Amino acid sequence: MIMWSRSFGKATLAVAFVTGLAAQTPPATLHFGFSPDASRRQDEIESILQEKIAPARIEEHLRWLTSRPHRTGTEGARITADYLLERLREYGFETELVRYDAYLPAPVSVAIDMLEPTRETIPTTEDRIEGDPFTAHVGEHPGWNGYSASGDVTAQVVYAHHGSVEDFEALEEMGVDFHGKIVLLRYYDTGEGRKVANAERFGASAVLLYADPEQDGFPFGDVYPKGNWRPPGAIMRRSVEFLPYAGDPLSPGWASVPGARRLSLEEVKLPGIPVVPISSRSAETLLRHIAGPPAPLDWQGALPLTYRIGPGPAKLRVQAQMDNRDRPMWNVIGRLPGETAPDQWVGLGNHHDAWIFGAGDPSSGTAALLELCRSLGELAREGHRPRRTLVVAFWDAEEMLLGGSTEWVEEHSEELLEKAVAYINMDSAVFNTERPLSVAAHPVLHRLFRDVARDIKDPRTGKSLFEAWRDLQNQFRRVPGVDGWGEFFDPERELERPHVFEAPYDDAAPFFNHLALPSSDMYYGADYGMYHSIYENFHWMKTVVDPEFVYHALMASLQGRVALRLANADVPPLDYVTEADYWRMAYRDLEAIAAGRGQEVPGIAEAKELIERWDAEARSLEGELTEALAAGRDMNALARPYYLASRDFLRPAEISHYASRNLFSGDTLDEGVSGSTLPGIRFALDKDDLEKARQESEIYLVALRRRAESLAALRRALR
Amino acid sequence: MIMWSRSFGKATLAVAFVTGLAAQTPPATLHFGFSPDASRRQDEIESILQEKIAPARIEEHLRWLTSRPHRTGTEGARITADYLLERLREYGFETELVRYDAYLPAPVSVAIDMLEPTRETIPTTEDRIEGDPFTAHVGEHPGWNGYSASGDVTAQVVYAHHGSVEDFEALEEMGVDFHGKIVLLRYYDTGEGRKVANAERFGASAVLLYADPEQDGFPFGDVYPKGNWRPPGAIMRRSVEFLPYAGDPLSPGWASVPGARRLSLEEVKLPGIPVVPISSRSAETLLRHIAGPPAPLDWQGALPLTYRIGPGPAKLRVQAQMDNRDRPMWNVIGRLPGETAPDQWVGLGNHHDAWIFGAGDPSSGTAALLELCRSLGELAREGHRPRRTLVVAFWDAEEMLLGGSTEWVEEHSEELLEKAVAYINMDSAVFNTERPLSVAAHPVLHRLFRDVARDIKDPRTGKSLFEAWRDLQNQFRRVPGVDGWGEFFDPERELERPHVFEAPYDDAAPFFNHLALPSSDMYYGADYGMYHSIYENFHWMKTVVDPEFVYHALMASLQGRVALRLANADVPPLDYVTEADYWRMAYRDLEAIAAGRGQEVPGIAEAKELIERWDAEARSLEGELTEALAAGRDMNALARPYYLASRDFLRPAEISHYASRNLFSGDTLDEGVSGSTLPGIRFALDKDDLEKARQESEIYLVALRRRAESLAALRRALR
Repeated sequence: MIMWSRSFGKATLAVAFVTGLAAQTPPATLHFGFSPDASRRQDEIESILQEKIAPARIEEHLRWLTSRPHRTGTEGARITADYLLERLREYGFETELVRYDAYLPAPVSVAIDMLEPTRETIPTTEDRIEGDPFTAHVGEHPGWNGYSASGDVTAQVVYAHHGSVEDFEALEEMGVDFHGKIVLLRYYDTGEGRKVANAERFGASAVLLYADPEQDGFPFGDVYPKGNWRPPGAIMRRSVEFLPYAGDPLSPGWASVPGARRLSLEEVKLPGIPVVPISSRSAETLLRHIAGPPAPLDWQGALPLTYRIGPGPAKLRVQAQMDNRDRPMWNVIGRLPGETAPDQWVGLGNHHDAWIFGAGDPSSGTAALLELCRSLGELAREGHRPRRTLVVAFWDAEEMLLGGSTEWVEEHSEELLEKAVAYINMDSAVFNTERPLSVAAHPVLHRLFRDVARDIKDPRTGKSLFEAWRDLQNQFRRVPGVDGWGEFFDPERELERPHVFEAPYDDAAPFFNHLALPSSDMYYGADYGMYHSIYENFHWMKTVVDPEFVYHALMASLQGRVALRLANADVPPLDYVTEADYWRMAYRDLEAIAAGRGQEVPGIAEAKELIERWDAEARSLEGELTEALAAGRDMNALARPYYLASRDFLRPAEISHYASRNLFSGDTLDEGVSGSTLPGIRFALDKDDLEKARQESEIYLVALRRRAESLAALRRALR
Repeated sequence: MIMWSRSFGKATLAVAFVTGLAAQTPPATLHFGFSPDASRRQDEIESILQEKIAPARIEEHLRWLTSRPHRTGTEGARITADYLLERLREYGFETELVRYDAYLPAPVSVAIDMLEPTRETIPTTEDRIEGDPFTAHVGEHPGWNGYSASGDVTAQVVYAHHGSVEDFEALEEMGVDFHGKIVLLRYYDTGEGRKVANAERFGASAVLLYADPEQDGFPFGDVYPKGNWRPPGAIMRRSVEFLPYAGDPLSPGWASVPGARRLSLEEVKLPGIPVVPISSRSAETLLRHIAGPPAPLDWQGALPLTYRIGPGPAKLRVQAQMDNRDRPMWNVIGRLPGETAPDQWVGLGNHHDAWIFGAGDPSSGTAALLELCRSLGELAREGHRPRRTLVVAFWDAEEMLLGGSTEWVEEHSEELLEKAVAYINMDSAVFNTERPLSVAAHPVLHRLFRDVARDIKDPRTGKSLFEAWRDLQNQFRRVPGVDGWGEFFDPERELERPHVFEAPYDDAAPFFNHLALPSSDMYYGADYGMYHSIYENFHWMKTVVDPEFVYHALMASLQGRVALRLANADVPPLDYVTEADYWRMAYRDLEAIAAGRGQEVPGIAEAKELIERWDAEARSLEGELTEALAAGRDMNALARPYYLASRDFLRPAEISHYASRNLFSGDTLDEGVSGSTLPGIRFALDKDDLEKARQESEIYLVALRRRAESLAALRRALR
C-alpha cells in the first residue's frame, strides 16, 4: 500500500461532496446491468461463492506467505511468485509468469552514530518483542529507504518538520543554513520523495525519516504488541524516488521487457543523498540533543520534549551503502476465460512483494485473493464460468515504484483499451478492523461498490457492510487518517452512505492514470501503526488484527462479488450518472479556486451545459436499459460499446504526459500539487498561464462533447 | 490576572478586523485633545516622568511585596495593604483604606489518595527547586481551588478533556455515566467555573483540574527554572465560582459595606462538590491508571501516553476541607487632586492580593504602579500637578471574584458616571518579555494606547513600543495564546499596527461591564507557564523574566503616560471614530451569524445608517476640535460633555442585569457564550426569540440615535 498524502480539492470539495450527491436510486431488486434471469443466477453464484471462501484457508496462505521476507528482487519474492503461479494453475487458471527488468534498490548496510555532544550509536534495527517470533532476527532487517543514495556524511542535525517547501522556507527565515546539514524529517503529510527532493534542493547532505507518535503512535491507543499503533522502536520503510512517473525509472512510457531500450542513469533524477529511516525512540534521542529556538508550535509532535530546530549540537555520522541496479520483477498472471465474451476482461489484482514479512501490506490481500481465486476456479468447474474473462494479477515491486503493474499496463495498453471492462485491485486486505473500509475508485464504480456492500454481512455488528462502513466513517470523520478521510467532509454532518474516494492508488494507479480505465483499490482500516515495520507479521495479524480471518474473508467476498457483477452482467454496471456528479463538482471546485484568485475558467459555461446534457442522457439511458433488460432483450451487442464509453476521458496520446492521460484526475510532481481534479486546466491556472488554460479547456470540451454523444449513440443503439 | 477563555465573534470578526480598520490618521505633531501649548507641556512632563521611573526601585518594591504570601483574607494581604497605603501617603496622595466584606474562600486541608489499582498518595504540593528559596516551604502552600466545596469522596476517575458541555455529551454518547465519579479536567479553553458547574450538572462527585503541558508546558520551550514554561510539578490555582456577576456573592448589585444587607448562602449557587488542582505529573500518574477506550484524538494532550476516558480502574479518595466565610477586603485608594478640574477623574489601578507570592500576578504591576505613583507625586510637588484628579486604586480579592473593585464600583456608580473620564488598569506588569504586550480596552481608548506606544522606547530592540508590540504580535499570530490572540486574526496577513482587544478584563471589568466606562487592562506577555503556581515568585522574575526590571519600568511609563494624557488634555482624548468602526464590525458580525441561521437582525438597516451618521459626526467633530485647539481656544467647558458622550451605550438600569449594562459587549453566564458584542440582540437571536430581539434592537437604536445626537450637540457647542 502506498500511503497517500492528499491535497485534493479539500475545503471546497468538502461541501460539494456533501451537498452535491443527494440520495441516489434505492437498491433495485434486480442488480444493475442484469436481466431478471441473470440477476437471480448472480445471486445464486454469489451465495455459493460466499460459502466457498474459507477463513482458515486464507490463514494458511498468509502463514505461508509471511514465513519469509519477500522483498522485490530477493529470493523470497521469486519463491512467492512461484507459489502463486502454482496455486493459480491448481485452481484452474491459465497462468503466465511475466518478467520485466527495472532499476531497483537494495541495501548493503546502514549506520548512524552520534559523535557530539555524546557518543552513541543510533539503532537502525527494531526491537525484539517477547512472544513475537518474527522479531528474533531484527538484526537482519535494518531500516532503509528505497532509492537512497550511498554516502558517508558527518554533519550537524536540523529538525525540519514534515519537509515541505514551506517548512524549509520557514527555517531559512529563522536563519537556518541547510548546506551540508543532516535533516531530521517526520513521515506523513508530504510525500517522502518530495521531502527528500526538497531537502536536497535546500542543500542538505542527508535525511533521516521517522514517524512521530502524533500520527500513528500512542495517542491513538495501545501500541504493539498490545494494540495496533506504532511502538517507539518501530521503523517505517519507504521508497523515496521522486519521478514524474511510476514503473522502471529507465523506461518511462514503455515496457521494460528483457532487451528493451533503457535510459542511462544520468538521464534520470534519483535522490543524490543518503536517506535512512529511524524509530521515534531514536528521533527522541536526537531531539534531546538538538538545541536552538523551539520549533513552531505546530511542529511539536507527541514526544515528551521541546522540539527545537538546531542546528546541532547533535552531530552525526550517517552511512548508507546501497546496491541499486537492474533486477528482474516477476508478475504472476492468471486467466479464467469468459464463457460468452472472452475478449472482455475484468481484472483483479494485488501485489506480492513486501518490505519484510508484509502480513498486512500486501500479503493479507494476497492470501485473500488466492482463496477467492480457488473459489472462482471451483465455481467455473461447477458450471458457473463467468460470461467475461477474469484476469488475475499478482504484481511485483509495488513498494518501490508500482513496478510490475506499470510495465504490464505499458506493454498491454492497446489491448487493455479494447478489452478491459474494469480493474479491481486489493492492495491489502486488512490492517485494522476498528477503522473504516477504504475504497478508492473511478466514479463509474462507486455505485457498484455500495450495491455489493449492501449484500455482504459485517462480521462484528451483523449489519450490512454498507452500514458498518458508513458508521465507522462517521465515527472517525474527525480523526486525521492516512486516507485523507478527515480532510474531505463536513465534520458536523453525518454521512448517509459510505464515501468512496474518487482516485484509486497503488497498482490501480497505472490503469487509472495512464489509461483512464475504470479501476479501484481497497483495504480495511487504512489507519494503523505497523506500516512497513518488522511488526507487520503473522503474529501481529493473528493476535491483534483479525484472529479468525473473517475480515480477510469479507474482503475476498467484496473483491469477488464486484468482479463477478462486472463479469456476469448483461451490460457491465458502470454508472455514468454518478460520474457526471463528480465532473459537476470538479468544475465547481475549479471555479471556486479560480474565483479566489480573480481568474475565470475558460469554457466553463459550455462545460457545465455539456455535463447537464450528459447527465440527462445518462439518466435516460439507465432507465431505458433497465426496461430493456426487464423485458428480456438480448444486450450482448451493447455491452462493449457501453463500457468503451468510459474511454471518453482519455487524453489524446500526442498531447499527453504518458503517465497522466486521465482528464478527470491527475498528479503533477513538479509543482507541489500532488493530486487534482481536471488537472489540465487546473495546472495551467495555477501557473496563471491563461493561453494554456484555454487550450486545455478546449481538450476538455471535446471530451465532454464526445461523452454526451457516446451516451446518445448508446441510446440510439438500444432503440 | 484572569486568564480569559474567549469565544468572541471569532471567525467572522477575524476578517472584519483586518479589513474593516484601514490605515488611521498618522501620528499628529500635537497630541490628540491638546492645544499646542498643552501638548508641548505634556511632552516635557512625560519626559520628566520617564526619567523619574527607576527600575531599581520597582525591583525593591517587588522584593518587599513578594517576601510573604499575600492572599486575600490573610494577614499578608493586610500587611501589604498597609504598606501600599503608607507609600501613597509618603508620595503625597490623599489616601483611604476602604473595607468591604465578602464571602471568601480559604483552605484548611486537601488530600488525594489513589486506592486502586495501586495505593499511592497524589501530591497536592509543588516541587522544591534548587536555588529557588521560595520553594523551601512548598508544604505550606498546597494547591486548592477557590470556592471548592468541602467534601470527602471516594470514586473512580473519568477523563473529560476541558469539561465543556460538548465534552460531557461526547462521553455520555460513549456510554460513560458520570454519576458519583471524580472527573479529571484540563484547565484552559472553557472557564473553570463553567467546567465545574458542567461536571456537577452531569452528576460528578468531585473535580480535579490540571494544566496540560500542551497548553503552557514544554512544547513552548524550556520549563522553569531554566525557562518560562510550566514544569511538571507546578500546580495552577483558580477560583471556580460560577455566578452571573462578580464581587461578593452575597451582595449582587450593591456594595457590601460593613453592615449592608446580604443574601443567605441558600440563595446563591456556589460549587457543591470538592474541586482540587493537581500538577501535570500527577495527572500523568492518574492517566496511566485510566483505562477504557482512547479519548478522541483532539483530547490527547502532550503527556507521553494514550489518554483514555475511563472510568477507572483508578479509584481515588479526594478530601477537601475548606473554610469559606465572610472576610474583609481592603482596598487602598489614593487621590492626587486635579489642578483645574478636580471633579474629573482618571483612574489607575492594580490589585494587591495574590494566590501566593504573586511576583507576576499581580505584584509586578503593584511594584510598577507604586513607582509610577512616587513619580507622579514628585511631579506634582515640582509644579506639574495634573489638570484632572488622578485616583489610584490597589484592589483586594481580585483573584477570587474581582471583589474589591466590584464593590467599590457598586458603591460609587453614580459618582463615577459623573466624574470618571477613564479607568486604566494594570493587572500585572510583566510575565514574559518574549511575548507581545496585551492591551484590552474600550474602543475609545485604542488610539491613545497606540499613540503613547509610539513615544515609548522598547528596551530590547530600540524600536518604539508601537513597533515592538506589533512585531511580536505578528511573530506569534499563529500560536494559540491565553489572550485569544490566535483566534482573532488572519494568520496569513501581517498586522500593520498592534491590535488592541476590545473588552478589558480583570479589575477593569466592573467599570466596563457595569457602567460602560472607558477602561482598559494591560500586561506584557500574557503567555507563560508559572501562572498561579508557587514558582511565580521573585526568584523567577529576577532570573527568568525581567532581571533589570526595564519592562516593569516600561509598563509604569505606559500606564502613567496614558493616564496623564487623559488627565492633562484640554479635551480628554477619547476616540469616537474608532468606536464607530467597532460598532460597524459588530453589526456585520451579528448579521453574518444571523444569516448563517436564516435569521434577520431586526432594525439593522437603521442601525447601519445611524453608525454612518455617527461616524461622519465624529470625524467632523475631531477635525473641528483639532482646529479649535490649534487656534488656542479655551475648551474647558467642552471637556465634560465630551467624555460624558461615552455613556451613550449604558443600558437603562431598569431593563438591565446589574452586572452587564454595556450595550457594546457582554457576557451571559447561563448560555455557554462567554463574551459577545451587541449582547442584547445576540442572545435573543441565539435563543431564536425574535420578539425579544426586536425589543432589544429598539434599545440599541435609541442608544445609536443618542450617540449621533451627542456628537452633533458637541459640534454645536464648539461653534
